[in-house]
Amino acid sequence: MKVHGKHYRTIWVKPDDQCVIQTIDQRWLPHRFVIEELETVEQAACAIREMHVRGAPLIGATAAYGMYLAALASRDTSGTTFLQAMQQAGQLLRSTRPTAVNLAWAVQRQLEALPADGDDVQAGIQATFDMAAAIADEEVENCRLIGEHGVHLIENLSQKKGGDPVNILTHCNAGWLACVDHGTATAPIYRAHERGLPVHVWVDETRPRNQGARMTAWELGQHGVAHTVVADNVGGHLMQHGLVDMVITGTDRTLYTGDVANKIGTYLKALAAYDNDVPFYVALPSSTFDWEHRDGVTQIPIEERDAAEVKTIRGLSEGEIRSVLLTPEESPAANFAFDVTPARLVTALITERGLCPASEQGVLRLFPERVVGKA
Amino acid sequence: MKVHGKHYRTIWVKPDDQCVIQTIDQRWLPHRFVIEELETVEQAACAIREMHVRGAPLIGATAAYGMYLAALASRDTSGTTFLQAMQQAGQLLRSTRPTAVNLAWAVQRQLEALPADGDDVQAGIQATFDMAAAIADEEVENCRLIGEHGVHLIENLSQKKGGDPVNILTHCNAGWLACVDHGTATAPIYRAHERGLPVHVWVDETRPRNQGARMTAWELGQHGVAHTVVADNVGGHLMQHGLVDMVITGTDRTLYTGDVANKIGTYLKALAAYDNDVPFYVALPSSTFDWEHRDGVTQIPIEERDAAEVKTIRGLSEGEIRSVLLTPEESPAANFAFDVTPARLVTALITERGLCPASEQGVLRLFPERVVGKA
Repeated sequence: MKVHGKHYRTIWVKPDDQCVIQTIDQRWLPHRFVIEELETVEQAACAIREMHVRGAPLIGATAAYGMYLAALASRDTSGTTFLQAMQQAGQLLRSTRPTAVNLAWAVQRQLEALPADGDDVQAGIQATFDMAAAIADEEVENCRLIGEHGVHLIENLSQKKGGDPVNILTHCNAGWLACVDHGTATAPIYRAHERGLPVHVWVDETRPRNQGARMTAWELGQHGVAHTVVADNVGGHLMQHGLVDMVITGTDRTLYTGDVANKIGTYLKALAAYDNDVPFYVALPSSTFDWEHRDGVTQIPIEERDAAEVKTIRGLSEGEIRSVLLTPEESPAANFAFDVTPARLVTALITERGLCPASEQGVLRLFPERVVGKA
Repeated sequence: MKVHGKHYRTIWVKPDDQCVIQTIDQRWLPHRFVIEELETVEQAACAIREMHVRGAPLIGATAAYGMYLAALASRDTSGTTFLQAMQQAGQLLRSTRPTAVNLAWAVQRQLEALPADGDDVQAGIQATFDMAAAIADEEVENCRLIGEHGVHLIENLSQKKGGDPVNILTHCNAGWLACVDHGTATAPIYRAHERGLPVHVWVDETRPRNQGARMTAWELGQHGVAHTVVADNVGGHLMQHGLVDMVITGTDRTLYTGDVANKIGTYLKALAAYDNDVPFYVALPSSTFDWEHRDGVTQIPIEERDAAEVKTIRGLSEGEIRSVLLTPEESPAANFAFDVTPARLVTALITERGLCPASEQGVLRLFPERVVGKA
């Protein structure tokens, strides 16, 4: 999508140096637009762990390019030494964000793309480069298709409302910044906007890292989509008063049974949507599916992050980006990054293949080739 | 309760000057402990409107002292001039925070305490002084009684858990800082702590003004009560995982039917509590009851505050209290201050007279002298 009028993806190969990957360092948004260069797998792992990049699809693409950088760094090895280095790189990347299933999936695809004996390292490098590009392109195409399928929901609401703006609430950033382009939750919104359907987005700020207030608001604003930032506490009130026509969120991991692990607080909005008969949609590329586990609350590991993310916050003050302390210095804080929304609260999933009910039956009708339930 | 080892109320008459009221300017907590002097009704109104003081009981007490300051300022008038000045002062105070029912109630009691003809102004001044002191003392006693009644709930849970800490989630600050002493939601917690029952409090940060992270965390910490600050998004996850034994919140207005208007986001926590079979209690002095309206969602006016409270936040940075911008400069924000939790989600109300179900029948059994339902 566009930044200051120019089209960007969130990750790309540096035009004049194929050994360097460029990304947007999202920690500085919305106040500064910083492009970061990744030259090693360690830098890629750091960018994922420290959330320079975030969002399941972008994490996957970054991990894929991280594997390519690892292959590049091992260009002077061969055989099992090369393969071991790649395994280690995969482990390093997988350890950065335990909840994101795309990450493990991207690493696995890269490992499988390598020559089996590891002897032709140049072929290995080329294979990881091609695979990373393919993963990025697939993510873009998947998001585009999510937009095509999801826009009909907005269209229907728009007709029901006689052309009045459709009010859509979203949580966190499942926008193009979280993906490679288009976004997941935002794809139907951008598609509606392109088609001239009036939409207005309620943007949950999404404490503690404020991905909504910082990134969703920024990317919608850059694209000219009407939006209003609200505290995470507000969605229930809006729904009680008929001010939300639909909710669309992304997801970091979706079980084949329809349980959704997404940014902490998603579950609360799903409860409110259910209580007020507001449809609650989750948009995802199928790379986000977890085909093994049945029960989200008991089986999905929830990442606990640094308490400092709760106790402090960064923002712009007199032209400088500063971190301010919000709590008493001595007070402890806990920082759970995700929660699980049970399938019973999800109206439907929006995937690149179309919509389906958030249930094992619904998901498997759309993805009949999948074998499920190993765990 | 105690601050740096010394006992304070939140509002008091200056020891050596009866024409001055002293309060804690809570905007600076937890980083600075600032005492503010109020010498006019305009200053009292400003302190309420700009939230130097906040919390329904404290707002009521401040309004009561504001009426006393208005009487003092009119000491050179008499008759209808005096009474008109007092009416105007009442209007000024009532206009500051439309949702808080205690405010109108405190103003009304002060107006009724005045000599009917307004001629004996000195008696009027004394009457408003005495009434303000009485209102403050009543609030303290009510909170003490709420603690006595509510502590049994904690005691029962403590027994069930074999003496393991009882985990209590609270939202916003319904602590002693919101009252005159003890607090409402915190009164049972402080009482349990005094009795040596192990408790641990999950403190919702309570965006946008962070009354939880700033004030509840601070006052619990000053008193030595174990607590952990969490983002407002976290409560649902905690409840799904059995980490919350009960929720206690305060309320800004409670309908006699049991509907509760409290800080924005309370409704979301009540939904999560209901979904996870966690008891959800609301603690209130009966001054917070609204005996006229039946239906919270449609009948309680919800204050909309300045968008700047959402877009920016204040905190401590390098020894200075600074405001930082969180959103893109251009993004609009909406700031609804309260929401309504329907009675069906409330396990019970804890009042100074004891517990009751959150229903018309339950409330009226405890307050049989009340005539209800004019609106």
